Amino acid sequence: MTQQMEIICIGNELLIGKTVNTNAHWLAKHATALGVTINRITVVGDDIDEIARVVREALERKTKFIITTGGLGPTFDDKTLEGIAKALNRGLEVNEKALKMVKKKYEAYFKEGKMERVELTPARVKMAKLPEEAEPLSNPIGTAPGVMIKVDETSLIALPGVPPEMEAIFDESVAPLLRKDAGEVTFFETSIYADGIMESALAPLIDQVMHDNSYVYIKSHPRGEERKPHIEIHFSTTAKNSKTAKNCLGKAIAQLSELIQKNGGKIKL
Amino acid sequence: MTQQMEIICIGNELLIGKTVNTNAHWLAKHATALGVTINRITVVGDDIDEIARVVREALERKTKFIITTGGLGPTFDDKTLEGIAKALNRGLEVNEKALKMVKKKYEAYFKEGKMERVELTPARVKMAKLPEEAEPLSNPIGTAPGVMIKVDETSLIALPGVPPEMEAIFDESVAPLLRKDAGEVTFFETSIYADGIMESALAPLIDQVMHDNSYVYIKSHPRGEERKPHIEIHFSTTAKNSKTAKNCLGKAIAQLSELIQKNGGKIKL
Repeated sequence: MTQQMEIICIGNELLIGKTVNTNAHWLAKHATALGVTINRITVVGDDIDEIARVVREALERKTKFIITTGGLGPTFDDKTLEGIAKALNRGLEVNEKALKMVKKKYEAYFKEGKMERVELTPARVKMAKLPEEAEPLSNPIGTAPGVMIKVDETSLIALPGVPPEMEAIFDESVAPLLRKDAGEVTFFETSIYADGIMESALAPLIDQVMHDNSYVYIKSHPRGEERKPHIEIHFSTTAKNSKTAKNCLGKAIAQLSELIQKNGGKIKL
Repeated sequence: MTQQMEIICIGNELLIGKTVNTNAHWLAKHATALGVTINRITVVGDDIDEIARVVREALERKTKFIITTGGLGPTFDDKTLEGIAKALNRGLEVNEKALKMVKKKYEAYFKEGKMERVELTPARVKMAKLPEEAEPLSNPIGTAPGVMIKVDETSLIALPGVPPEMEAIFDESVAPLLRKDAGEVTFFETSIYADGIMESALAPLIDQVMHDNSYVYIKSHPRGEERKPHIEIHFSTTAKNSKTAKNCLGKAIAQLSELIQKNGGKIKL
C-alpha cells in the first residue's frame, strides 16, 4: 500500500461554510496520536456520483484505511452508502445484523416511552441497507451503525457525521485496528514560542536544525505579524518509545533555541 | 467549465490534527455568500508532488476557480508555488512586481525600527519567486503576496495560510472576481429548530417538502440525540434577489412546520 490513511468528509454544510469541519480535525488528531499517517482529507457534497468518485480515487491511490464521515442517517440526503456501493459496483441490501442493531435501538426508545410504537419505517430500514459484504459497526450513542468494508487490502470505514457518534464508533471499533497497524510507532509533538525574530530570519535556522536532526519535523506558525513577530515553532517526530522521542525533540529544540537567541530572538517554552 | 470552485488547503498541521481548518470554512462561507458553488475541498501536506497532483486533478475537473491556502511564506516547507509550477510544467522565476512588494514591506519594517537593515535574504526573495506568467496579489497585512495564474479558463489563486492575510487578500483581490462571475445570483439560508420528533420520522416530511419546493434545499442536523431529539433544519436557496428567496424559503418553512406539528413535533424559529 502506498498510503496509510485518507479521510473523506461528506456534507453540503461543509461546502457552503455552514459547519466547521471538526470531524476531520478530531479524526486526524486521534489517528496521528495512534501513529498513523494521514495523506489526504477530502470534502464533497451529498451527491452519489461525487461520493463514488472520491472513494474510487482514494482506492486507486492504494490507501490502507479510508474513513468517511457523514451521510449515514435516515434522510434522503444521507447518500454515503449508495455512493460507496456505486464506487465498488456492489448492490445495497438490508444487512440483517445492521437491521437488528437499528431495531434494538428503537425498541429501547419505545421502552423509555419516547415512541408510541416500534415501527420500522422505510427511513429507519434505510440505515441498515449496506453495500454487499459489509460489516456493521455498533453505534453506542445513536441509531445509524458505522460500516466496515474490506476491498482487497483496503479497510473502508464509514462513520456518521454527528460528532459524538463518530467519536464513539471510532474509539470502540476503529482505534484498535489502527493501533495494531501502526505497531509500536507513536507520534510525539511539542511547541516553543519565539519573540523578536521575523519568520523570514527564522527560516534558514530551521533549515539548519532539520538538516542536523533528520527524524524531527519543524514548522513555524506566525501568530503575531511580521512587524511584531510572535512565532509558534512546532516540533514533531514518530518514534518507538517516548524516551527516544524526547531525546530527539530535546536536541533539536536546544539547537534551534541557541540559534534564535544568537540572532536576537527570545524563547518562551 | 463543469465546476465553479475548489479549495485546496496545504499544510501538515491540518493532516496531523494540530490545526482546525478554519480557512476552508471561511473561504467556503464567503464564496457561497457571493453566489459561488464550491464543489470540493482537499487538504494535502507540505509536499511538492502532492501539491502538484492535487492541483492537476482540480484542473482536469475543469474548475473555474481554484483557491489554495498555505505554503507561501519564507520557510523551507512553504512549497505551494513549487508544487503549482510543477503541476503547470512552468519554471519558477523572481517576479519583479512581487519582489517590489516584498522589498517595500521590509523597507517599511526598517523605517519602523523593527529591523536593523533591509536585507533581501534568500528566504525573503523566495516569497517573490512565482511560476512563470503569474500575477502577484498585494498582501495588505503581511509580507508574502498572493498569486493569481490564468490556466486556460481557470483562475488559479494561491493565498497565504495565516488567516488575517488570507482574508485580506481574498476581500481585496478575489471577492470582486467571484462577484462578477456569480452575476446576480446570491445564496440565502435560514434555520428552524424542531423538538420532540425523531430525525427518522422527520425524513419523509422533508422529502415531501423538497419535492413540492424544487428550488429549496433542506437538510436536518441532529443537535440532541435520537431519544431526546432536538433537530436543526437548515433551508437554503439561490435566487436573483432577496424577495424571491424569502418567498421560496418562507413557503417551504410554513409547509414543513405544519407537517412537523401534525406529527407531534414542536417548532422553534
